[in-house]
Amino acid sequence: MTTVEARPVADVTRAEVEDFLFHEAALLDDWRLEEWIELFTLDCTYEVPATDAPDADPGLTWSLIHDRRTMLEQRIIRLKKPAAHAEFPHSQTSRIIGNVRITERRADALLVEANFIVSRMKAGKFDQYVGRHHYELLPAADGFLIRRKKSVLAHDRLDPQGKISFVL
Amino acid sequence: MTTVEARPVADVTRAEVEDFLFHEAALLDDWRLEEWIELFTLDCTYEVPATDAPDADPGLTWSLIHDRRTMLEQRIIRLKKPAAHAEFPHSQTSRIIGNVRITERRADALLVEANFIVSRMKAGKFDQYVGRHHYELLPAADGFLIRRKKSVLAHDRLDPQGKISFVL
Amino acid sequence: MTTVEARPVADVTRAEVEDFLFHEAALLDDWRLEEWIELFTLDCTYEVPATDAPDADPGLTWSLIHDRRTMLEQRIIRLKKPAAHAEFPHSQTSRIIGNVRITERRADALLVEANFIVSRMKAGKFDQYVGRHHYELLPAADGFLIRRKKSVLAHDRLDPQGKISFVL
Repeated sequence: MTTVEARPVADVTRAEVEDFLFHEAALLDDWRLEEWIELFTLDCTYEVPATDAPDADPGLTWSLIHDRRTMLEQRIIRLKKPAAHAEFPHSQTSRIIGNVRITERRADALLVEANFIVSRMKAGKFDQYVGRHHYELLPAADGFLIRRKKSVLAHDRLDPQGKISFVL
Repeated sequence: MTTVEARPVADVTRAEVEDFLFHEAALLDDWRLEEWIELFTLDCTYEVPATDAPDADPGLTWSLIHDRRTMLEQRIIRLKKPAAHAEFPHSQTSRIIGNVRITERRADALLVEANFIVSRMKAGKFDQYVGRHHYELLPAADGFLIRRKKSVLAHDRLDPQGKISFVL
Repeated sequence: MTTVEARPVADVTRAEVEDFLFHEAALLDDWRLEEWIELFTLDCTYEVPATDAPDADPGLTWSLIHDRRTMLEQRIIRLKKPAAHAEFPHSQTSRIIGNVRITERRADALLVEANFIVSRMKAGKFDQYVGRHHYELLPAADGFLIRRKKSVLAHDRLDPQGKISFVL
């Protein structure tokens, strides 16, 4: 949970970042959300901008998701609750994380971009959500910690509900 | 064909495994099925569990595919036969193998997981099959041999026919 | 722009090729087409064969695209022009480049194949184009230059218009 910088940012390879992102995707595909949230720092943000304003300031405009750590934890609790949620029984998801690029190396953090396809199956309905993840990653003793994750959907509109009931 | 272990399991990198899996996918995309089957050991199994019971014991429950080597060879012969099969003229397929992870290193074998999207086009119809491959791989002189391949579809149901007429 | 060979072909790794192809895909996803065209040599060709004749000689048969450098530059100008084109406002696209394989190392160039999924969203309509890129790449001081790019769609037919209004 601590953000101890175990390795210099300069030494990190794309292969290491991929190992971490593939692990994250597997946790999400397997609905191991309590483990997933442990990948984040305490001061993290997770954001999914509205599809018509991907570059907007999330403090000023509407976002599909804009969570700090506590809100993210509560989102996970809701997603796992049997009685109350659109995701129970939860949908099956399968993620492809591709085109991973280290776009900037800062003093203590890496900026990383990666494209995604999340395939989602529920009650015989097959949907796909595509777009680009933007990460700020801190090197940790084992892997990385996520300080910021922003998932920009490439869709110009979502289906009728206009919302997503799971984590990208 | 022999399972000579040419390299220690401990030295294998994810990049080497990807080289092999990308080669396998290209053989399948190109319908070079006789070469594909040579990637397997003589004691291999290839399994596609039914979509409602991915973790079931294939000896006790129904699977979409559960082949040992001889059955797999006969499946290939059927798939290539002009007269008798739904796959002639065969569909066009294009595979993405992503999120490759070495999940366990045993004494003589590697366990590997990878997500897939198989896009299939036939007579203007575009379908996708998504899910996760589970491999048991033996290091060989040139690449690997597959002792077990289990392809778990993430679909909660398949289209009306409820069957797949090609190899994932 | 010059094709100075800065590194021997024999030393190039798949990881380096991926870095380059992921960069190319990001330029296309971001519609930075003027930068994209600078990735090509002056004697380049870019080809998208008709879907019913992927192996045909492009000089003798119809192709969806078969551009030399000057035509490619004019295609880019058309794609960016507000008034005249089906792509303004342009569609949103998100590319996955996967299964990258170095298939041949020549004296001065690499042959590379990679599978693609291009997801395209426009006015609420979601389409995907899948297939295989075939590249001839020249090692350059920083990355590579593309001498030939041929994008073979795996579709047996395209949608009603039978044309693609953007670059794969």
